Amino acid sequence: MPNRLSGVLAPVVTPFKRDLSPDAARYVGHCKWLLANGCRGLAVFGTNSEANSLSVDERMTLLETLVQGGVPAEKLMPGTGTCALTDSVRLTAHAVSLGCAGVLMLPPFYYKGVSDDGLFRSFAEVIERVADSRLRLYLYHIPPVSQVPITLALIERLLARYPGTVAGVKDSSGDWTNTKAMLDAFAKQGFDVFAGSEVFLLENMRNGGKGCITATGNINPAAINQVFERWQTSEADALQKGITATRNVMQKYPMMAALKAVIAHWGRDPEWATVRPPLVELAPEQKKSLVAELAARDFDMPGLGPTLAAALA
Amino acid sequence: MPNRLSGVLAPVVTPFKRDLSPDAARYVGHCKWLLANGCRGLAVFGTNSEANSLSVDERMTLLETLVQGGVPAEKLMPGTGTCALTDSVRLTAHAVSLGCAGVLMLPPFYYKGVSDDGLFRSFAEVIERVADSRLRLYLYHIPPVSQVPITLALIERLLARYPGTVAGVKDSSGDWTNTKAMLDAFAKQGFDVFAGSEVFLLENMRNGGKGCITATGNINPAAINQVFERWQTSEADALQKGITATRNVMQKYPMMAALKAVIAHWGRDPEWATVRPPLVELAPEQKKSLVAELAARDFDMPGLGPTLAAALA
Repeated sequence: MPNRLSGVLAPVVTPFKRDLSPDAARYVGHCKWLLANGCRGLAVFGTNSEANSLSVDERMTLLETLVQGGVPAEKLMPGTGTCALTDSVRLTAHAVSLGCAGVLMLPPFYYKGVSDDGLFRSFAEVIERVADSRLRLYLYHIPPVSQVPITLALIERLLARYPGTVAGVKDSSGDWTNTKAMLDAFAKQGFDVFAGSEVFLLENMRNGGKGCITATGNINPAAINQVFERWQTSEADALQKGITATRNVMQKYPMMAALKAVIAHWGRDPEWATVRPPLVELAPEQKKSLVAELAARDFDMPGLGPTLAAALA
Repeated sequence: MPNRLSGVLAPVVTPFKRDLSPDAARYVGHCKWLLANGCRGLAVFGTNSEANSLSVDERMTLLETLVQGGVPAEKLMPGTGTCALTDSVRLTAHAVSLGCAGVLMLPPFYYKGVSDDGLFRSFAEVIERVADSRLRLYLYHIPPVSQVPITLALIERLLARYPGTVAGVKDSSGDWTNTKAMLDAFAKQGFDVFAGSEVFLLENMRNGGKGCITATGNINPAAINQVFERWQTSEADALQKGITATRNVMQKYPMMAALKAVIAHWGRDPEWATVRPPLVELAPEQKKSLVAELAARDFDMPGLGPTLAAALA
């Protein structure tokens, strides 16, 4: 069984061709660049991956492409939670069969105001149907988008029923108080808490967390990894300040389109900017000011252009 | 090409077996009962159908089962809007190929705060990719659940670009002011406005609307159809009062579980009560009080038991 993941994970942005079909070559290239530049794992098919704009078959094909392309399955934590029980089971079983380190699971997110009983039953049905002791399930708490929260009471029930299988959480609530409550309640039981943004990385590490799964891990993995590696040193606060400042630049723009615009610019590959509806690309003036703001901070993505070019060759 | 649908449409509840797989026989039986008892169309795979808890393949199989089972395709308006462009295209093309009267399309609903540009592009991509003049697309505005609204400005753009194809809307905002604004702006252009609840049926008809697509159409279609058929008569207000009162009983309970509990009770078929996670069945005391409240109103579903029994035979 793969070791538990820790450190900085990127919810890998999914490249599309101009016809909006997934672009396997650019995808493998970007994943390899991330692993070579500070990411210790790849939370593919996350929110910032536009995963919810992909069909189940598209996700499965891309995941197989990654593994066949040389991205180690033990570095992968694919998102497998969907609205439909049968889809979540299919994606999760597939990820486990490929040897992925874990899966990051959204609750079913169409119906709102559902009970903890119903959510417990959802996760339990997936676990029981996948029926594989290799499964490591990370709960995905992102109420600003899913609108369906994962409460402390639900985590407690799932941990009690499925210890070992329920492995942790990504907390994208944006609310440190909530992350801290998860850490205080469950971290000592081997429940791995990942902050949903590097803004909370240092605090998360100081309170028993395992790292962060963060959108900007797609573009700034080396600097974020520095905070992870040096969190116990005297440099930690200064390093944290730096990555928070870069994050604050990115947050002025629509995140997914901005990430892709940055990769397109620093990778010298305009096609990377393509997003699938309902998203739209940055307007030219947005792109210009984003690049200028990052350049002013000496931002760089060293080696990205050659890595992408090699993947496309 | 089928005639445009009007009148009372039910978002048909989807029966599940005890193992949570879709139950084709009960499904066909219920659809036939609805068409024989006041529904002029069936908005299968709506919110109250638990459609978002079904995979794309499950939906396609069920739709084929209905048509093969003798439910006329020209009565069907399946829901085909999903989070993923490719899924929405696949479901829509499939529905058109079967001869369905129309499709009811949710916007992609995972990503929140998306722009009208992005939503326009989403619907436009589906229409362009399906590329079939038989397509009649009804927009599904249900912000309390989808959290992604369909604005008047978006409708105006879509109608201007795809006249004839963009055929109407179901307004489940629960806000009559919004329904009225849609009627005033677009009804005269052949844009068919369906209220999302029978509570607004009479007002909708008096202002140029075409009917309603309503959860409680699953259990009370005959009475709701009376309001549709007699909306220009002196009885209309009294009839409306009656169906609103029944609706108000139902709204005290979780709607989908309550609809299934009512069918299970009046159809004498306990298995009908099954819901898929993340929903949960009514608690026994909820079911008891719901049945008592409806019985006190002389509620009935005449012929349901025999119709279901015949379907299962």
